[in-house]
Amino acid sequence: MKILEGGITAATGFSANGIACGLKKRKKDLALVVSEQPCSFAGAFTTNLVKAAPVSWDQDLVKNQKTVKAILINSGNANACTGDQGIRDTHSMASLAAASLTSVDIPTTEREVLVCSTGIIGLPLPMEKVEKGIAKIAKDLKADREAAQKAAQAICTTDTFTKEVAVELMIGDKPVRIGGMAKGSGMIHPNMATMLSFITTDASLSKESLQALLGESVIDSYNMISVDGDTSTNDTVLVLANAMSGSPQLDEQSPDWESFKEAFLFVHTALAKAIVRDGEGAGKFIEVTVTGALDKASAQALARSVVSSSLVKAAFFGSDANWGRILCAMGYSGAEFDPAKVSLSFKSEKGSIEVLSGGQPVGFDEKRAKTILLEREVEVHAKVGEGNGSGTAWGCDLSYEYVRINGDYRS
Amino acid sequence: MKILEGGITAATGFSANGIACGLKKRKKDLALVVSEQPCSFAGAFTTNLVKAAPVSWDQDLVKNQKTVKAILINSGNANACTGDQGIRDTHSMASLAAASLTSVDIPTTEREVLVCSTGIIGLPLPMEKVEKGIAKIAKDLKADREAAQKAAQAICTTDTFTKEVAVELMIGDKPVRIGGMAKGSGMIHPNMATMLSFITTDASLSKESLQALLGESVIDSYNMISVDGDTSTNDTVLVLANAMSGSPQLDEQSPDWESFKEAFLFVHTALAKAIVRDGEGAGKFIEVTVTGALDKASAQALARSVVSSSLVKAAFFGSDANWGRILCAMGYSGAEFDPAKVSLSFKSEKGSIEVLSGGQPVGFDEKRAKTILLEREVEVHAKVGEGNGSGTAWGCDLSYEYVRINGDYRS
Repeated sequence: MKILEGGITAATGFSANGIACGLKKRKKDLALVVSEQPCSFAGAFTTNLVKAAPVSWDQDLVKNQKTVKAILINSGNANACTGDQGIRDTHSMASLAAASLTSVDIPTTEREVLVCSTGIIGLPLPMEKVEKGIAKIAKDLKADREAAQKAAQAICTTDTFTKEVAVELMIGDKPVRIGGMAKGSGMIHPNMATMLSFITTDASLSKESLQALLGESVIDSYNMISVDGDTSTNDTVLVLANAMSGSPQLDEQSPDWESFKEAFLFVHTALAKAIVRDGEGAGKFIEVTVTGALDKASAQALARSVVSSSLVKAAFFGSDANWGRILCAMGYSGAEFDPAKVSLSFKSEKGSIEVLSGGQPVGFDEKRAKTILLEREVEVHAKVGEGNGSGTAWGCDLSYEYVRINGDYRS
Repeated sequence: MKILEGGITAATGFSANGIACGLKKRKKDLALVVSEQPCSFAGAFTTNLVKAAPVSWDQDLVKNQKTVKAILINSGNANACTGDQGIRDTHSMASLAAASLTSVDIPTTEREVLVCSTGIIGLPLPMEKVEKGIAKIAKDLKADREAAQKAAQAICTTDTFTKEVAVELMIGDKPVRIGGMAKGSGMIHPNMATMLSFITTDASLSKESLQALLGESVIDSYNMISVDGDTSTNDTVLVLANAMSGSPQLDEQSPDWESFKEAFLFVHTALAKAIVRDGEGAGKFIEVTVTGALDKASAQALARSVVSSSLVKAAFFGSDANWGRILCAMGYSGAEFDPAKVSLSFKSEKGSIEVLSGGQPVGFDEKRAKTILLEREVEVHAKVGEGNGSGTAWGCDLSYEYVRINGDYRS
């Protein structure tokens, strides 16, 4: 597997565009991703009972539609908690995008257009602006790097940087690419959050294989990150596969399945980690690895509980070696373990330091711990001593800035 | 039921003291509560798998001991994650307190002394200081208001005020009193948190009745508050009943059971709400009431989810009528409901305003909403339209101050 410069247009046959249609004050807020050929596709969605209108639209397509061609995304307004009007507006967006694509010689039906929205909840979409934007956006679709960047910019909300990734690997004798883009920031939490992630590949997979693979990958990537513990109304991961690499169709029996799976997970994990790095107000990137748990699920539950704890996060903000809070968060994770067998250490570029060994506190050098914890990227290693389960979760600190951003997000 | 000025010494036969033994820099940090007569007792404890040493001690007494006489509490050090040394230290504290009480003519055994600790996690108790403190504290036990206040001060950590309550009611023709004190601040969350709460009563109840009643009361009081979502290693609620009012023994068959139960719950709820009012960095007190849910448990889950959401809490910090976040938090509560039937309104001393009606956003006056939300006490009312279940939860906003306090708690 080779890591490329690139994003959503890296795979053969995908083009994109990103423009400003006026939902945000000045910035880009409308993105379109299109495939020349119809795509197998898969989706993973928020578990929140309150689902934004576009989530319902996409879930219906995933359930009932065989192929799609495009994804239309707006930022600035989530079209969530918008009642019946929201449902109608999503439908219009798909329908307008299909017409717009058809007008530029990419014949598309409304049910071939997935729709995503992100931004403020509870206000109706200003459809006049959206309509004008959709009429315009298909006219300048390109397959180059710049087009991918425009699209990546247009899906951002409080994100401070765009999140893109692309890789290439050989399937048989054909190079296959997987590219993607995501937006995150606040509300990022295990089991999805206001997070949109889009992956395109020119590999060939059946809809069923793609859906199964996505389900598996989500568990180890997006579900292992936390910014603030809230699960949003709009979380969506969509994958399109257009088979245009000409490589043989992949399934679990293929000799290249494992390497494709690995590359696919790499792409999702890279985007998930980028989301956490850009968590609202985040100053630190925290990686928690649990080893020796009863099983993988226990290890992941333990790691997730640590990155989700407000108290742990605030301690990292203060670069405070407050390992008691880490053990405490493990204790309420729901996973079984014996606190008396736990060892904990911190690690960063400045070195590593053990603070708890077999359940017994280690008298450690506070000054050295501080030096390690003052780094922007810090690892926590927890050895549990129960079995062979391991898992990693990613999170960020809880800062003044998080409170500032979220204390007045709407204005 | 009459509300009295008073606290842990309000009921007949209870005396207390609070002193500084040096665990904190200057403030009081050791409290003792004693009953003249042996007491029926009950306890509710943290659900965290990582339990502080004193929690294990108290749980053992609740399970195996028939009566107790005293509670010894230190603040400044939680004696949690302290390994075997912690277990030995708790045992010593009970044993030293028993000796100290016996020396002032209150014959007590070590297994008649409940022990609680709160404060920093992971550092061994400075036992030399604790020993000297225990030797001294029993010498000045008093049953007056001032003694109760001293004890209430000595159990505080980052609390900014003491939390005390006392009530009186008639059981038969005898006045019976229930008094209590608590400490809270950070880490307060449904299913207990670093919260210590102590209740004394001169009513007469069997240990079994008292334990059942406490279990029921905890669900509607401490389990309905949230400060930051963390569940601590030390959470403990202890109740002592010494029967010294001379009133008849109470059980579920007693004619006065319901009124005692109501008074008992009032005391716990008053302390729970005081804890939330004093949440770390809290500037607002938020009461969320859900009506029309499928059942009481659903209503409580919905209300709890709202007060626990970091995004909702940050919105309240900014006095922002961000009702979408409230609906969103309800959506991931785990309770079943139809978002299309939900109505939401805000209320404070400045009036009330509906923002969502039957799942449809209401165009409301933002300026008026701001005026209502700028108040220090704000109510959220959610009507769900599924059944007759109702529930109330209490929480606070998420402020810069929370981050400041918890970013450097240890120093």
